[in-house]
Amino acid sequence: MNKKLKIAQFGLGPIGVATLKLAASKPWAQVIGGIDIDPAKAGRDLGDLTGVRGLRSLAVYQSIEQLFAHGKPDIIFHTAVSRFRAAYPQLEEIARHGISVVSSCEELLFPQLRKPALARRLDGICRRTGARIVAAGVNPGFVMDVLPLCLSGVSCNVRAVHVQRVVNASTRRGPLQRKIGSGLPPEEFRRRLRQGKVGHAGLRESLALIAHTLGWKTQRITERGDAVLAERAIHTSYVAVKKGLTCGLHQRAEAKVNGRIVLTLDLKMYLDAADPHDAIQIVGDPPIELRINCGVAGDQATAGALVNTARRLLSAMPGLLLVTDLPLPHLD
Amino acid sequence: MNKKLKIAQFGLGPIGVATLKLAASKPWAQVIGGIDIDPAKAGRDLGDLTGVRGLRSLAVYQSIEQLFAHGKPDIIFHTAVSRFRAAYPQLEEIARHGISVVSSCEELLFPQLRKPALARRLDGICRRTGARIVAAGVNPGFVMDVLPLCLSGVSCNVRAVHVQRVVNASTRRGPLQRKIGSGLPPEEFRRRLRQGKVGHAGLRESLALIAHTLGWKTQRITERGDAVLAERAIHTSYVAVKKGLTCGLHQRAEAKVNGRIVLTLDLKMYLDAADPHDAIQIVGDPPIELRINCGVAGDQATAGALVNTARRLLSAMPGLLLVTDLPLPHLD
Repeated sequence: MNKKLKIAQFGLGPIGVATLKLAASKPWAQVIGGIDIDPAKAGRDLGDLTGVRGLRSLAVYQSIEQLFAHGKPDIIFHTAVSRFRAAYPQLEEIARHGISVVSSCEELLFPQLRKPALARRLDGICRRTGARIVAAGVNPGFVMDVLPLCLSGVSCNVRAVHVQRVVNASTRRGPLQRKIGSGLPPEEFRRRLRQGKVGHAGLRESLALIAHTLGWKTQRITERGDAVLAERAIHTSYVAVKKGLTCGLHQRAEAKVNGRIVLTLDLKMYLDAADPHDAIQIVGDPPIELRINCGVAGDQATAGALVNTARRLLSAMPGLLLVTDLPLPHLD
Repeated sequence: MNKKLKIAQFGLGPIGVATLKLAASKPWAQVIGGIDIDPAKAGRDLGDLTGVRGLRSLAVYQSIEQLFAHGKPDIIFHTAVSRFRAAYPQLEEIARHGISVVSSCEELLFPQLRKPALARRLDGICRRTGARIVAAGVNPGFVMDVLPLCLSGVSCNVRAVHVQRVVNASTRRGPLQRKIGSGLPPEEFRRRLRQGKVGHAGLRESLALIAHTLGWKTQRITERGDAVLAERAIHTSYVAVKKGLTCGLHQRAEAKVNGRIVLTLDLKMYLDAADPHDAIQIVGDPPIELRINCGVAGDQATAGALVNTARRLLSAMPGLLLVTDLPLPHLD
């Protein structure tokens, strides 16, 4: 506790800036710089970019190499991409320097699902250099995976887990309102969803993490998604959607064990969604039904999830880790 | 995973028997015996006592020493007493042999609160011998401490934590129905509550664990308790309560930071309680309000909490540990 942790922020979009501001407010953290590959951000003053006085005269670098030439952090908050494949070269470069990462990369929640060979390789590098890498967030990372797993900790037996999350996307950041397809004609939404250009990333990873942790051998994981259409014109601070066009999405992942559906994760994120909430049902002994009215609000909570993971991560063994390898989450 | 964990059960009341039955059903566990200081149980066949065929020809020993003369377990489930002071000699004897313990002892949740010197001593013994000791349970151990802490893990800031638990004690085991004072005249209930002979143990420990983990320096922890009186005659399988007599309790612990009440734990456990539930309010950024209708049912869940802690405990560093030192809880 005597020595402050040196922190750098990789990715200075809304979540990255929120994470950096929160980290800068912690007595145990000392921010040493930012990284963003966007030339419009690189080279700027971090204090100007974030509006945080204490970050003035710190730089935004355009690459990891440039940051490391000026100083090495103990840990990097990485909020740059959703796909593990896209994150991989960035994470590998950081890990080769023995530096640890808490990342919001959705597929990193359970990287062995889509890219087992890359995951093994990154794990090997971390073990050799002493780096620790883990994903954190609200969804994936908490509401639809960590929280149901935590509830299963007081269970004698679990036969099924069902999670529902309804998010009113009108209350969320601009990039998210666009990522859910706001304003697209439904056919265009479906085309882009198939290409992975819109949609929520990480639902399958949440499901796979639950199955893995409970020791369930799931057969196939199926995922479906479709547009939710605006029933009237909707205007937010970021987007305008005409009646009949896409105002968000409904995605659902399911898995069977022995032919029976035992895991369902159901996510609705759309503009002006009524009754936003998170609901978890543990079908088991004892049965548990949990509800969070209004749900865990995404953007702010994601910054909290990332920052609150840093010191717990550094207390863990080196490697490419799962959130379930770390001690109980808590405000730090 | 290749070698089974050798398990012994210390304390063969209803919770101990439920824990032992659950442990015996796990593919990773091998039960080697039981311990109970009650001469009516010691010497009996564990299979007869529990009704579990697979435990036949295993013995109930009257002491730790007797059990160890026959074989050493890897871990002991300890469900014998509520007070840390009473548990201490039992835990010390086990720890001296380097054997780990998951205990339902309520005050062990945060043993440094009432007996810091004893806690330090036991921790030192564990570190020398390689033993790990931790408390687990539903309350304390989950609903009023671990779960609110887990929610704080997605918080940027927490200003207050309020937890309410309402338990319909008519659905619970006999010893609990008696421990909440069922059938006592209210004056007698208050007298015994002051003496610590009735009442829920561990409420202050839950509060202290939250404050400790959040890094809050609380001023005084206050705890109040009173009888809930039967509005009509109540009969359960275990007790009969006349109208106007005690049918349970209402306990409340509070703590202030800088003169402001920031932690409240409010517990009602009485016969025929309407609308049993668990409710957690995190006053912070973001605000979070969670509700579990019907609440986490105590007795079955306590056995689950104990058994699900065993393998996570053995992966941790030796010492007298807090539940917050262990990886995320989950069904094992």
